[in-house]
Amino acid sequence: MIVTTSIIPSFLETRKASEEICTPLHTEDYVVQPIVDVSPPKWHLGHTTWFFEEFILAKYVQGYKRFHPDFAFVFNSYYESVGKRVVRTDRGNLSRPTVKQVYEYRNYVTNALHRFLEDNENDNVLDLVEIGIHHEKQHQELLLTDIKYILGHNPLLPAYHETFNEHSKSLKPKTNFITIDEGVYQIGHTSTDFCYDNELGVHKVYLHQFKIADQLVTNKDFLAFIDAGGYRDSLLWHAEGWDWIQNNNIESPLYWHQIDESYQQYTLSGMQPLNLDAPVTHISYYEAFAYAQWADCRLPTEFEWEVAQKYFDWGHRWEWTESAYLPYPGYSKAPGALGEYNGKFMVNQKVLRGGSIATSKNHTRYTYRNFFHPHLRWQFTGFRVVKDNQSHKI
Amino acid sequence: MIVTTSIIPSFLETRKASEEICTPLHTEDYVVQPIVDVSPPKWHLGHTTWFFEEFILAKYVQGYKRFHPDFAFVFNSYYESVGKRVVRTDRGNLSRPTVKQVYEYRNYVTNALHRFLEDNENDNVLDLVEIGIHHEKQHQELLLTDIKYILGHNPLLPAYHETFNEHSKSLKPKTNFITIDEGVYQIGHTSTDFCYDNELGVHKVYLHQFKIADQLVTNKDFLAFIDAGGYRDSLLWHAEGWDWIQNNNIESPLYWHQIDESYQQYTLSGMQPLNLDAPVTHISYYEAFAYAQWADCRLPTEFEWEVAQKYFDWGHRWEWTESAYLPYPGYSKAPGALGEYNGKFMVNQKVLRGGSIATSKNHTRYTYRNFFHPHLRWQFTGFRVVKDNQSHKI
Amino acid sequence: MIVTTSIIPSFLETRKASEEICTPLHTEDYVVQPIVDVSPPKWHLGHTTWFFEEFILAKYVQGYKRFHPDFAFVFNSYYESVGKRVVRTDRGNLSRPTVKQVYEYRNYVTNALHRFLEDNENDNVLDLVEIGIHHEKQHQELLLTDIKYILGHNPLLPAYHETFNEHSKSLKPKTNFITIDEGVYQIGHTSTDFCYDNELGVHKVYLHQFKIADQLVTNKDFLAFIDAGGYRDSLLWHAEGWDWIQNNNIESPLYWHQIDESYQQYTLSGMQPLNLDAPVTHISYYEAFAYAQWADCRLPTEFEWEVAQKYFDWGHRWEWTESAYLPYPGYSKAPGALGEYNGKFMVNQKVLRGGSIATSKNHTRYTYRNFFHPHLRWQFTGFRVVKDNQSHKI
Amino acid sequence: MIVTTSIIPSFLETRKASEEICTPLHTEDYVVQPIVDVSPPKWHLGHTTWFFEEFILAKYVQGYKRFHPDFAFVFNSYYESVGKRVVRTDRGNLSRPTVKQVYEYRNYVTNALHRFLEDNENDNVLDLVEIGIHHEKQHQELLLTDIKYILGHNPLLPAYHETFNEHSKSLKPKTNFITIDEGVYQIGHTSTDFCYDNELGVHKVYLHQFKIADQLVTNKDFLAFIDAGGYRDSLLWHAEGWDWIQNNNIESPLYWHQIDESYQQYTLSGMQPLNLDAPVTHISYYEAFAYAQWADCRLPTEFEWEVAQKYFDWGHRWEWTESAYLPYPGYSKAPGALGEYNGKFMVNQKVLRGGSIATSKNHTRYTYRNFFHPHLRWQFTGFRVVKDNQSHKI
Repeated sequence: MIVTTSIIPSFLETRKASEEICTPLHTEDYVVQPIVDVSPPKWHLGHTTWFFEEFILAKYVQGYKRFHPDFAFVFNSYYESVGKRVVRTDRGNLSRPTVKQVYEYRNYVTNALHRFLEDNENDNVLDLVEIGIHHEKQHQELLLTDIKYILGHNPLLPAYHETFNEHSKSLKPKTNFITIDEGVYQIGHTSTDFCYDNELGVHKVYLHQFKIADQLVTNKDFLAFIDAGGYRDSLLWHAEGWDWIQNNNIESPLYWHQIDESYQQYTLSGMQPLNLDAPVTHISYYEAFAYAQWADCRLPTEFEWEVAQKYFDWGHRWEWTESAYLPYPGYSKAPGALGEYNGKFMVNQKVLRGGSIATSKNHTRYTYRNFFHPHLRWQFTGFRVVKDNQSHKI
Repeated sequence: MIVTTSIIPSFLETRKASEEICTPLHTEDYVVQPIVDVSPPKWHLGHTTWFFEEFILAKYVQGYKRFHPDFAFVFNSYYESVGKRVVRTDRGNLSRPTVKQVYEYRNYVTNALHRFLEDNENDNVLDLVEIGIHHEKQHQELLLTDIKYILGHNPLLPAYHETFNEHSKSLKPKTNFITIDEGVYQIGHTSTDFCYDNELGVHKVYLHQFKIADQLVTNKDFLAFIDAGGYRDSLLWHAEGWDWIQNNNIESPLYWHQIDESYQQYTLSGMQPLNLDAPVTHISYYEAFAYAQWADCRLPTEFEWEVAQKYFDWGHRWEWTESAYLPYPGYSKAPGALGEYNGKFMVNQKVLRGGSIATSKNHTRYTYRNFFHPHLRWQFTGFRVVKDNQSHKI
Repeated sequence: MIVTTSIIPSFLETRKASEEICTPLHTEDYVVQPIVDVSPPKWHLGHTTWFFEEFILAKYVQGYKRFHPDFAFVFNSYYESVGKRVVRTDRGNLSRPTVKQVYEYRNYVTNALHRFLEDNENDNVLDLVEIGIHHEKQHQELLLTDIKYILGHNPLLPAYHETFNEHSKSLKPKTNFITIDEGVYQIGHTSTDFCYDNELGVHKVYLHQFKIADQLVTNKDFLAFIDAGGYRDSLLWHAEGWDWIQNNNIESPLYWHQIDESYQQYTLSGMQPLNLDAPVTHISYYEAFAYAQWADCRLPTEFEWEVAQKYFDWGHRWEWTESAYLPYPGYSKAPGALGEYNGKFMVNQKVLRGGSIATSKNHTRYTYRNFFHPHLRWQFTGFRVVKDNQSHKI
Repeated sequence: MIVTTSIIPSFLETRKASEEICTPLHTEDYVVQPIVDVSPPKWHLGHTTWFFEEFILAKYVQGYKRFHPDFAFVFNSYYESVGKRVVRTDRGNLSRPTVKQVYEYRNYVTNALHRFLEDNENDNVLDLVEIGIHHEKQHQELLLTDIKYILGHNPLLPAYHETFNEHSKSLKPKTNFITIDEGVYQIGHTSTDFCYDNELGVHKVYLHQFKIADQLVTNKDFLAFIDAGGYRDSLLWHAEGWDWIQNNNIESPLYWHQIDESYQQYTLSGMQPLNLDAPVTHISYYEAFAYAQWADCRLPTEFEWEVAQKYFDWGHRWEWTESAYLPYPGYSKAPGALGEYNGKFMVNQKVLRGGSIATSKNHTRYTYRNFFHPHLRWQFTGFRVVKDNQSHKI
C-alpha cells in the first residue's frame, strides 16, 4: 500500500511564511530598490505568486481568469521566453500595484491553486507546484536579505526586529582541520526528494588529499586580516577584486561601521558592537579569497565541500567555494521557460554551498548549489578554509 | 493708522494645500523616484517642512527641539553650506521615515511655527516665513508634476484624479500676432509684494520691433510639425537637441502614445484621446525651438515676453523663452545658505515665463523667472512664437 | 576702374600656415585624441581640406575627381546633412589615412582649387573660399591648443618648441577700471570685411553704467584666490561648477603642477616656473565666475566687452563673458549644410571675446564671438572683471 | 657530460620576430588603441622590452643605466607591486615615446642583455630570461590580433599583408567523433621543458565517457546556426550572453560583413568572400556555447580536451572550453611581482586550449592554458563540440 502525502500543507505553509517575513515592515519598506540586486519586497511577493499563476493556473485550470491582465508584465523576472518584463532596474520605480493589491493577488492565486490541487494532484502539476514552492523558498531568503539591505542603508538605520539573532550557533574556541583522503568520490543528488536540475547528473570526481576547517572564519580572524593591512596589499587579490575594492572604497565587510576606534555592525536587530566570536558575514568572494591568500590557505572546491560536509556543522552562512558555477556532466536543462531557471546563469558566477540563517526550513541540503557573482555581499555569506600542507598562519 | 495683515493664514493655507495635493495618493506613491529630476512626494512634504525648521525654528525659537536629529540630513536638498545631504539620486531608496512620520513632522513644525508667529512677527522672521511659503508653493508645482510622472510611467497607468482637467481654458480658432514697437523698456519687479532675488535689479533693455502670438502653439499645430517629419530633419535642431532625440528615441511630446494610427495622451485623469485644440505641453526647449525653426518663427526672449504679456492671456503652461537664465544687472545674492536659492543655477538653463495649471494660487506674476535645463519635459511646458517679418508658415 | 584683390594669396598663405604649425611634430603626434574635445592634428589637416573639396570643388569643378572616395566619411565633422561621419570619439582610433596621405590630399586639393580660382573668381565661389579660409584659421587655433593638450598630457612632457612664448605682452603693475556710461549702444558687425553670420544683425542694446578692468586677471591674482580657499568654498560656485570640481578633483588651472610648495606650469616650451605676472589661462568659465564672486566683482557681458574694448588691449587670451551664446535679433542661418556652421550650437555655451596667442593672423576682430561649454579649459582662456560699485577686493 | 644549449639564439630570435610582425606597418599603425583590450603595437614592443629591463637588467647588472627614467611608468602593464603605471585605457593617447625611440629602446635592452648573457648564464637569470622570452611570444600573438583589429576597424579597411593566409590547413569533408572512455586521467605539465605556473600541479581527474569532434566547427556550420535564427532565440544563450548580443547588436562573428545577400570577411589580407570550409573564428564563448546548445552538443572541458588532443589535429584556432580558469590543486604562485603573471586572473575567465595561426613558433603545447573573458572575440578563437549521447543535429 502506498501512502502519499498531500502537497497542500507544504504549499500553504510556504505561502504563509513569505508573508510572515514581511510582518515587521511598513508599507513603504515594500517599495524601494536601493541597488539593482535588491528587489522591493512587494515584488518578491508578487513574483512568487505570478510563478504559480503563469506556469500552473493559466495552463492547467480551464477558464482560469487572471487576477490582472498586466501583472504578468510587472512580475515576470527574467523569463525571456514568456514575454516582456519590467527591466530589473525599474522595479523600485513602481508604486502600483499597491501592497494591498499584491496581498489580494496572493490570496487570489493561493486560493485558486488550493482549490485546484484538491481535485487535481496529477504528477505533472505536482512537479510544477513543488518547483513553485522551492522557488518561493529561494525568494524568502532574498526577501530577508533585501529587507536588511533596505533598512541597513537607510540613514535612520531602523531595526527589522528587536530580537532577531543573526548568530545563534556557538563556535568552538579553536578550529580543527579534517583530513580527507585522496580518491574517487561521487557527487550529486541521489535521493528521490526534490532537487534542482543543477544538482543532477550524479558523477565521479577525483580528489587529492586536503584538510578542511571544521568551522567558519570568524569576525576576529577577519579583523586580524584587516589589521595586517589585507585590504592594502595588491598581491593578495585577484586583479578584478583589487579594482573592485579600489573603485568602491571597500575596507571591511558590508554593514561594518568604524566608529572612533572600534567596529559596529548593522544587524537585523539594529546596530550592535561587532561580535568577535561570530562567523564573518557579508563578504564577497574576492575578500574570502584574499583572506585565504593572506592565511596561506585556500577556499575549498564545491566537491571537496560536498565530500567533507558530513564531518562538520554547516547552515549558518552561505559558504563561498573556489568553484565556478558550471553544469555537471550530462546536465540538460528543462525544455521551455522553466529551462531558464538555472542553466543560463552558468557563467561568471561562483558556487556557494550550505545555507544561512535566512534560508527557509527544509530548503537546503548538502548537494544544493547556490551561486552569485563574486563581488556580491548582501547575502549572509561566509567561508571556511582548506590547506594542502602544514604551513599556515591560522 | 497702519493695518498689517497677519502672515499666519497664508502660512497655514499653504501648508494645507501641499497635503491636499497628496490626498488621492496611496502610501506607495509617496516613496518612488523614477528619474533623478522627480522627487518622491514624501520628500517634498518633508523638505518644505525642514526649510521652516532649519532657517526659522532652529535659529529663532529658544530651546527649540528638532523633531528628529537625522531629518536635516534626509530632507536637505542642495544647500551645500548647511551640511551633508542625501544625494539626489538616492531619495527614492529611502523607505523611512514613513509617510505617517512625515505628516507628524509636518504637524510638529506647522504648530511650532504657528505658535511662534502669534508672538513674534518681527520683520526678519516674517521675511523668512514669506520665503518659506513661496518655497513650498514652488514645491507644490513639482509635487503635482512629479506625481504625474510617477503614475504616468507606471505600466498600469493609473489616474491621479478622474476629473482633473489639464486644459480648462479655451483657445481662439485663430492666433493673432501683436506688434510691439522698438524702444527702451523697463524690466524687473517693482512693487512691494514678494518676489525672488532673481527678479530684482530693475533695469532697461532695448527691444527691436517684433510680433508675438497672442496664444500658445496647440497640439494640432505640433502634430503638423511631426507629420511634416520635424523629428527627422537635423537642420531644424540644435546639435545637442539632435543628439538628445537620437539617444532617447524622442518622436513626440512626453506622455503621447501612438496607438495604431492615432495619439493618446496620458493626463492626470488617465489616458485620453489627444485634444487637438489644447496647447501642446510636456515638450523640451529643443522641441519648441525646432518647431519654431520649421515654422519660420522663433521663440520670444524673456524681455519681449515681459513687455508684451499684458496684451495676451497666460498662466496655463509654462512658456519656454530663447533667454538663458542669467543674473540681472546689479544682481547680488543673499548672504549665507539662502543665497544658494537662485544664483547658483544661473548657467546652462533656459528661462520660462508665465505659469501652469500646476502653479499654486498667487504664486506666479509677470516678472517671475522659472528655469529648467533645455531637455526637461516633465513640467507643463508650452510655448508661443514670435516673428520678425511677414514670411511664416503658421 | 575697380581694382579687386585676388583671394589666391590669402588662400595659399592659410593653407601653408596650417602646415607650419605642425612642423615640430613627430608623425605619432598627428594621430592621438586623448579626450573627445581634442582632435588628432592630422584630422584637422584633412578636415579643413575636405571642406574645400566638399563645398567647392565637388560642386563647381566639372568632372572633379575626389582624391579618395572614403575621405568625406573620415573627415566630415558635424555636418549631419552631408552624410555619415566618423563619430567624434573615434577619431583617435584611425591610423589610416597616414600623415603622408593627408599631406598628399592637402596638396591635391590646394592645387585643384588654386587652378580653379585662376579662372573662376565668381562671387558665389569667392564667398565659399573666404568661409573656407576662415574655417581653416579657426582650426589652426584648435591645432595649436590640441597639440598642447597632446604633449602636455604625455608623461614625458615634451616641449612643442623650445622658444615658444605664451606670454609676450607685459601687463601694467596695477589694473585700472574704465567707466562706461549708461545708454543705448550699437552691437554687431558693420564693415564689408568678412564676418560670421553670428556677428550680423546689427542691433541696439541698453547698458547700465559699469566699470571694466583695463587688463586681465593674472596668475598672481588667481593664486590669491587659491590660497584663500576659493576651490573649497561652495558658495562661490555655480551648482554645476561645484559638482564639476568635485568630480574631477580640480584644484588649480589646467597645466599647473604643484611640486613641493610651488607651482610649475606646462607651456608650449615645456615645463616652466609659474609666471606670476602673466594673465591666468586654461581656466573654465566656472573658475572665472568663482574668482569674480570671491573678488566681489563679476564678468562682463559680451555687449559690455564690445562697447568697452576700444579702451583696453586685448588679443592675448580668449576672455570668458557672462553672456550665453544666443542669436542676435534677426539672425537667420545660411540655407543647407553651411547653415550648420554656427546656429546649431546656440544653447548651453558661453561667449568668449577677443582672441589668443593661438589665434591666426587677421582672424579675430572686436565683433567676433567665440563660444565654448563652460567647463572647457584647453583653450588659452582668460578673463577680466567688471564692478558695478566701489566695494571690491582687488 | 652534459651539453647545455645557450639561450642566446632563442632570445635574439624572439626579439627579432616581434619586429618582423611589425614590418608591414606604417608609423601611425603603432600608435592607436581603438578599444581597451587592444594595445598599440608600439606599446607591445616597449612593454616586452621593459620586462627584460625591469626584472633582469635592473636587478642583476651592476651599474645598469636605464634607457629612460620614465619608460618603466609608460610600459608597465599590470604589475601593481612594481609601481605606478599608465592606465590601460590611456595607452592610445600617448604619441611619445615615438616608434623610433621604442626601437632604440629595444636595441639598447637587447644588446645589454645579450652582453650580460654571454658572461652570466646562472640559473636564476636563465629562468627569468626564459619567462621573458615566453612573455614576448605571448605578446607577439596579441600584436598580430591587435593589428588586425586596428586595420579591420579602419573605414579604409587596409590589408596587413596581401598574401597572409588565415586558413592554411584543410579540413575533412566530414567531422568524426572520437570516443574517450570513462576513467581517471592525469592532467598537467610533466616534462622539463618550459611551462607557466598555471600548468603545474600535476593531478588526476575523473572523466566520464564522451565523444569529441576530430575537427573544428566551420563557417558553413556556423552559417547554418545564423540562418536558423540562432542569434534571436534567447533559450540558447546564457543570460549574460543574451544581454551582450542585445546591447552590442551582435548578429555574426566579428569581421563578418553582410553585403547584399552574402557575407564578406575582413582578414589580414583584406576583405575576402567568406570561406565556408574554414573553421569559424572571432567568436566569443557565448556564441560558441549558443551554437552547441542549438546543435544538441556541448563544449569540452579543458580536461577532456587535454586527454583527447592526441587523437586530433589542433593549433589553428584557439579553442573555447567549458572550463572556468581556476588554479590546479596545489597551485602556488611565484613570490613578488612575477607572481602576478597568472594567478590574479583566475576568476571570471574561460580557458582556451590549443593555439592559433597567430601563435609564435614553439610557444604552445598541449598543457598550455590560455584564458579570456567570455565576450572577447578579437583573438583567432574557434571551438569543437562534444556529445554525450547519440542525439545531435550535426
